[in-house]
Amino acid sequence: MENNVQEDYKSEILDIVRSNASPGIMRDKLEDYHENDLAEVFPELTITERRKVYRILDIGMLSDIFEHIDEKQAAAYLDEMDIKKAAAILSGMETDAVVDVLRMTSKEKRPVLIDLMDAEARKDMAVIASFDDEEIGSRMTTNCIVIRENLTVKQAMSGLIDQAAKNDNISTIFVVTEDGTFYGAIDLKDLIIARQESPLEDQIVTSYPYVYGQEQIDDCIEKLKDYSENSIPVLDNDNKLLGVITSQSIVELVDDEMGEDYAKFAGLTAEEDLKEPLKESIKKRLPWLLILLGLGMVVSSVVGVFEQVVSQLTIIMCFQSLILDMAGNVGTQSLAVTIRVLMDESLTGKQKLELVWKEMRIGFSNGVILGVLSFLIIGLYIALFKGKTFGFAYAVSGCIGLSLVLAMVISGAVGTCIPLFFKKIHVDPAVASGPLITTINDLVAVISYYGLCGLLLVGVLHLAG
Amino acid sequence: MENNVQEDYKSEILDIVRSNASPGIMRDKLEDYHENDLAEVFPELTITERRKVYRILDIGMLSDIFEHIDEKQAAAYLDEMDIKKAAAILSGMETDAVVDVLRMTSKEKRPVLIDLMDAEARKDMAVIASFDDEEIGSRMTTNCIVIRENLTVKQAMSGLIDQAAKNDNISTIFVVTEDGTFYGAIDLKDLIIARQESPLEDQIVTSYPYVYGQEQIDDCIEKLKDYSENSIPVLDNDNKLLGVITSQSIVELVDDEMGEDYAKFAGLTAEEDLKEPLKESIKKRLPWLLILLGLGMVVSSVVGVFEQVVSQLTIIMCFQSLILDMAGNVGTQSLAVTIRVLMDESLTGKQKLELVWKEMRIGFSNGVILGVLSFLIIGLYIALFKGKTFGFAYAVSGCIGLSLVLAMVISGAVGTCIPLFFKKIHVDPAVASGPLITTINDLVAVISYYGLCGLLLVGVLHLAG
Repeated sequence: MENNVQEDYKSEILDIVRSNASPGIMRDKLEDYHENDLAEVFPELTITERRKVYRILDIGMLSDIFEHIDEKQAAAYLDEMDIKKAAAILSGMETDAVVDVLRMTSKEKRPVLIDLMDAEARKDMAVIASFDDEEIGSRMTTNCIVIRENLTVKQAMSGLIDQAAKNDNISTIFVVTEDGTFYGAIDLKDLIIARQESPLEDQIVTSYPYVYGQEQIDDCIEKLKDYSENSIPVLDNDNKLLGVITSQSIVELVDDEMGEDYAKFAGLTAEEDLKEPLKESIKKRLPWLLILLGLGMVVSSVVGVFEQVVSQLTIIMCFQSLILDMAGNVGTQSLAVTIRVLMDESLTGKQKLELVWKEMRIGFSNGVILGVLSFLIIGLYIALFKGKTFGFAYAVSGCIGLSLVLAMVISGAVGTCIPLFFKKIHVDPAVASGPLITTINDLVAVISYYGLCGLLLVGVLHLAG
Repeated sequence: MENNVQEDYKSEILDIVRSNASPGIMRDKLEDYHENDLAEVFPELTITERRKVYRILDIGMLSDIFEHIDEKQAAAYLDEMDIKKAAAILSGMETDAVVDVLRMTSKEKRPVLIDLMDAEARKDMAVIASFDDEEIGSRMTTNCIVIRENLTVKQAMSGLIDQAAKNDNISTIFVVTEDGTFYGAIDLKDLIIARQESPLEDQIVTSYPYVYGQEQIDDCIEKLKDYSENSIPVLDNDNKLLGVITSQSIVELVDDEMGEDYAKFAGLTAEEDLKEPLKESIKKRLPWLLILLGLGMVVSSVVGVFEQVVSQLTIIMCFQSLILDMAGNVGTQSLAVTIRVLMDESLTGKQKLELVWKEMRIGFSNGVILGVLSFLIIGLYIALFKGKTFGFAYAVSGCIGLSLVLAMVISGAVGTCIPLFFKKIHVDPAVASGPLITTINDLVAVISYYGLCGLLLVGVLHLAG
């Protein structure tokens, strides 16, 4: 259903651009569409058709459209037009988007474009560029309504009307003192329904939430989500208002943060997309694989210690993969839960201990269920298909069941402790990726399984197969 | 830094509530704080102090505060007050939040509360309750400004002022025809700067994006993100306007969707949190573990086929875990990339083939690098630490290197094909979780490793160790 809708808009827009209507009519018609829908049509137009669109639409509309085009494409489209027009379009865009697009333009063109942009846009860009990528200031926009605190409702309203033409985010109005210090915020709704002669002070929420530009995104993202406002002000260290974080930026931030965690969890160093060249993808994945290979070799050399046990009783090696995988799976589950818990809340020492204890109990409970099942099924399997006596079969499957329980309890604890430890030493717990936990749990599982087999089967029962 | 800020607000609010100021003064002071900050103080107040707050603040403010309290807590707080007041607070909340809170109230109290709520809120709840959890309609709010299409700018403005007191989302105004059919949208900004006597028609974007209430959240979430609007209208199947999806809901949706994918990827059936009882956690994890145990047994019985090979050459079993883990890791990486690609875009058949081909090439390239490394290092290890001849050592490590390459190529393909296949048969590709892929790749790795060892080492070279 939704695909049809989008397709309809697309073909309608294409028809309009390809028609022979006069520029005025065409502009009227195109302005009825959402910028995102217009942006989606751009790749399907020929360069001549796009140039027609650049001439027909006004700069404000083009700026809005360019915000919906990905930065690489946008830079390419800017190359198709007069450089002055390109600079004007950039001047009208949200500052954080401009920075992204400029990064994609050629080194020769970039300074020229920046020079041609209007002074205010240049100033805003400089402010945003002063923050690094992990700081919340890098994601703000300066596109907001700011008024002084000593106005009447009527004056505030006319201040808003003056600034509205140039600024998109009008649903919250920010109030500053004479020297630009953040004073509070007014919900536009409250301003609209307030009596014109009443003092503005009554409408101002003076303890409005805010963030400092230098706060780490990781640290304030939960707070930004909790306030669920359309825009949250960003202050510098002197409490001066620099700009706002819009809820659109919050959507992007949440998407990025979780996407990154997801990628790390899967043992990638960063998110990948479809168009990425092969070489890039290989580079992103190789580092983890090399580490994991190293760890795998350690596991192998530990298995090597038990070669003697296995050579006396080769049947036990058939079930190695079962125990290793189950330990890895339990560890991965505990890890995923712990990472999410750590992301959403800050835990006290006691809560951390409780979490580890809980994960171990879950590991134990599930371990007992799976261990008993394995004991029954595998014993039967060995007796029936491997032609061993029932006594022998259930001695082996008993060892398997026991080591499953043991490995799952320890894996639950490891899967919880490792991210907690990483968090403690200020390393992102998401890098304790699934594959890493799996490899560590392999060690646990190998030692508990072959250790138990060696002790019980070979040592005590003197079995050999 | 940000923790200090929040703590300050908290203690300020606590001081105000605990002071002996008159109700009027106290209300004035409390209204200066953000609802979320007020909500965060509630758990630290005694029941008597909370009752004081319920009496002092007006219903509108209390409704806003209750939207920031989690549903279980909110239901408990509602129990502390007069049932009429509780119903009034619910009437003022966003409809989707009301539904969540009501679900947490006792079965006896729920119908009474609903009866006492105002008629309009009841009607809105009925509309939202008519959608199921996976449909976008269940996440909308009816809290929006709606006007007729045949007005002047001035009339539209006064319509807005009338509705603003009751509705929070005013930055976009929705326009409907006489029978309620969706006609278009006006950006409040445009309305504010428009000349009063100009026709409204000029300000209306008639091809504004929308979704149908019955669309699946999974299907339209990308579209909602792309438009990056403060609110997107939701229509019924007759194109009548039902409500809007706000950008706050989009933040929550993105958070939920990605959290769910993340959980599924780790082999959990759903997200867990810290406070969840042990039994719940066990139940969420056990289903996958049982499936994985079953699959693990299949792998074990396949390994069993090669018991003969291993018994002749026990050293090769030391490296089983290495090859299985690496195959699993590569598969997990491919899987994670494919799931994210599938989430963000819809692929053509050709693109799908390209993706599989690319993942196989990445597997091959990384496989060759890791295979050569393993060949060199493991050969040396066997020769030096296991006391074998160099010829024997490098014959074994050659097999390991070769099967690493083979297993990684196949794993890359499997990790890509399985989610593509799941998508094709309309199963969420995220259920092709990491552990599932790992187990499947185990089979691939076991067969290629022991198969190769059996053929080359035992069959051709007639080695035995």
